[in-house]
Amino acid sequence: MINVAVLGYGTIGSGVVEVLNTNGDSINKRAGDQINIKYVLDLREFPGDPVMDKLVHDVNIILEDPEVGIVVEVMGGVEPAYSFVKQALLKGKSVVTSNKELVAKHGAELIDLAKERNLNFLFEASVGGGIPIIRPLNQSLTADEIVEITGILNGTTNYILSKMSDEGIDFNTALKDAQEKGYAERNPAADVEGHDACRKIAILSSLAFGMQVDFEDIYTEGITHISDIDIKYAKALEARVKLFASSIRENDRCVYAMVAPVMIRANHPLYSVNDVFNGIFVRGNVIGDVMFYGSGAGKLPTASAVVADVVDAAKHIGKNIWTIWSSKKLELTDVNEVENRFFVRLEQKDDSVKEQVAALFGNVEEVQCADVQGEYAFITRSITEQQMKEKKEKLNGVLNVIRVRF
Amino acid sequence: MINVAVLGYGTIGSGVVEVLNTNGDSINKRAGDQINIKYVLDLREFPGDPVMDKLVHDVNIILEDPEVGIVVEVMGGVEPAYSFVKQALLKGKSVVTSNKELVAKHGAELIDLAKERNLNFLFEASVGGGIPIIRPLNQSLTADEIVEITGILNGTTNYILSKMSDEGIDFNTALKDAQEKGYAERNPAADVEGHDACRKIAILSSLAFGMQVDFEDIYTEGITHISDIDIKYAKALEARVKLFASSIRENDRCVYAMVAPVMIRANHPLYSVNDVFNGIFVRGNVIGDVMFYGSGAGKLPTASAVVADVVDAAKHIGKNIWTIWSSKKLELTDVNEVENRFFVRLEQKDDSVKEQVAALFGNVEEVQCADVQGEYAFITRSITEQQMKEKKEKLNGVLNVIRVRF
Repeated sequence: MINVAVLGYGTIGSGVVEVLNTNGDSINKRAGDQINIKYVLDLREFPGDPVMDKLVHDVNIILEDPEVGIVVEVMGGVEPAYSFVKQALLKGKSVVTSNKELVAKHGAELIDLAKERNLNFLFEASVGGGIPIIRPLNQSLTADEIVEITGILNGTTNYILSKMSDEGIDFNTALKDAQEKGYAERNPAADVEGHDACRKIAILSSLAFGMQVDFEDIYTEGITHISDIDIKYAKALEARVKLFASSIRENDRCVYAMVAPVMIRANHPLYSVNDVFNGIFVRGNVIGDVMFYGSGAGKLPTASAVVADVVDAAKHIGKNIWTIWSSKKLELTDVNEVENRFFVRLEQKDDSVKEQVAALFGNVEEVQCADVQGEYAFITRSITEQQMKEKKEKLNGVLNVIRVRF
Repeated sequence: MINVAVLGYGTIGSGVVEVLNTNGDSINKRAGDQINIKYVLDLREFPGDPVMDKLVHDVNIILEDPEVGIVVEVMGGVEPAYSFVKQALLKGKSVVTSNKELVAKHGAELIDLAKERNLNFLFEASVGGGIPIIRPLNQSLTADEIVEITGILNGTTNYILSKMSDEGIDFNTALKDAQEKGYAERNPAADVEGHDACRKIAILSSLAFGMQVDFEDIYTEGITHISDIDIKYAKALEARVKLFASSIRENDRCVYAMVAPVMIRANHPLYSVNDVFNGIFVRGNVIGDVMFYGSGAGKLPTASAVVADVVDAAKHIGKNIWTIWSSKKLELTDVNEVENRFFVRLEQKDDSVKEQVAALFGNVEEVQCADVQGEYAFITRSITEQQMKEKKEKLNGVLNVIRVRF
């Protein structure tokens, strides 16, 4: 029997208990031993709940119990999760977590700590909810040099953008709908400003390139500036607007990373990833393009990934599963040097706007949208972020700028 | 240093050598040891080729060399591959293979043989080319009961169907194009009759349900009966025709498996899997829907999956990676009991055809296609395969029947 302690009895914690109850037999068969939840840590009481008699309020009961082999951390946030996880590893317990803040901030250190002690620190559920992506990156794509990882990694923003596109509504109406459905928090900043996607692409990049990618270094732009007018233009272009979190290696070791809305067309593998779903596109130098798709959040999909990690930890008692993520920092390329095409919308009072654009950008692709009046819209050729920034300052009446990937 | 012998220096064998040469440094880092190709077995000579001095014509040189730790079998076909692989395992060598015929036929036995000897028998490349699917099924989706696996598992037929749809050409013209591009064999039966997809879904089903699914038991229908007229109707229905290989569990342990063309619409995750790409859709009882997408064939993508298995075998010298695939046979449900909706095309000489259809099927969904005259087409409600078979015998002038998944 392998005793597990679950830290946090919120949505995911209760999902973990539910998954183990639902599929216990086959899970135990796959783990090669019986997985038993011995403790659930939460400050709250849950009278009448089946876990009531396993509930503890003091983490030390768990840390000091030598019978606990695996600690599942599903509290979220950096502290006290970091202290609890670190102590658990120091006490000889493997740790499974769904906590992207913790992994993005302290992943390299906790992986090393686990390695030194023949334990495991596993975090499949921290990116892409139930989608298997951490383990495939770590164990399946080992013959490749990763050239690009691009993900739709945040279900809330993908839902909002899909809703805006499907129903022609504006950002605030779509956000309200997402909040009513429970897809967005009352304070939605972490999602709509791109911070959540930023931490996730930092984790994936660190794994793909084997070095520490600090999330603070990643240029991050959210979707709050995307309007229903932008979506109309996207439709006229047979494109969709998606919040992409990308990490791209150009010429050997020069990597840049960015979270920003982009326009893509149907030929991009992530075009069909809509609503709350996530998708992760990986390009390797020999495998070519692969894509992983599924529920990026939600109680049971995320709990499924957590429990799969518990099974793996149970199968590897005393054996570390090697993860390449050194604490050596990867210096990202200055994002100003990155090239993109840009979709630009300007106020059009008269025809002088065209002359202004031609003088600044040379030949551009004009974009017509039957529904929109009083604007001049175009797509630039491929220019650097720095060039775009400088040109934007010289332009009058800029309404919006969105990167274009076609 | 870990010595590897490659059996077969064809497309994939030479791809394996190329991948190890291209990404040797990072592969060795991930394997934790240097991977060295000591032998290449082939009956042919390759004068001037870099592997020339590693070439042997007698498999016994490899089998009798205790320095060889991993044997890579990329010859294809059941024999002599089966004998060579079995002997290699008996001689204490782990085996990596890309050979779907071998795995579908003898997988359970070879897995057991490896398990008993603390070796590994790995076969990621046997299904979906480079797409990670075997390892995710085996190691990531362990918290779930798999409810459905449906794949577009054959790139050749997917290319032909995509080409027919994009260009409005008939099956034979599209097949000829595929042959000219090297996507189809001169004798295309294994692909276009569905045999290749059948073996692959047998492998995935065996892994998903943990028991032996015999490919001979799987109802298999190819795409040779799909005409350009069918594709026109599909377009009128905003649908695409895809060759699906499916394995579905209904009410607990009753599983049916089928390879057949189906019509799907844009809301199906596999709708956007076009050209030579493969996609595999998995539904679990807690994870929900996940999908894996990528190059299903091709020299380097397949070699990437083979080499990833070599890395895994190298990391697990003396330790078996547990695979649940018992030799106990899974009795599939009689396919006649399976329910589907069917698209049916009939010759229409006069209006009596409608009466005949109404009498046999009750209410149906009529399908209009502006380009097609002299036919009556409709979609049935959900009925069993047996019912469809019986009704079809009573119908006059049946032109085609295609299953519908919407």
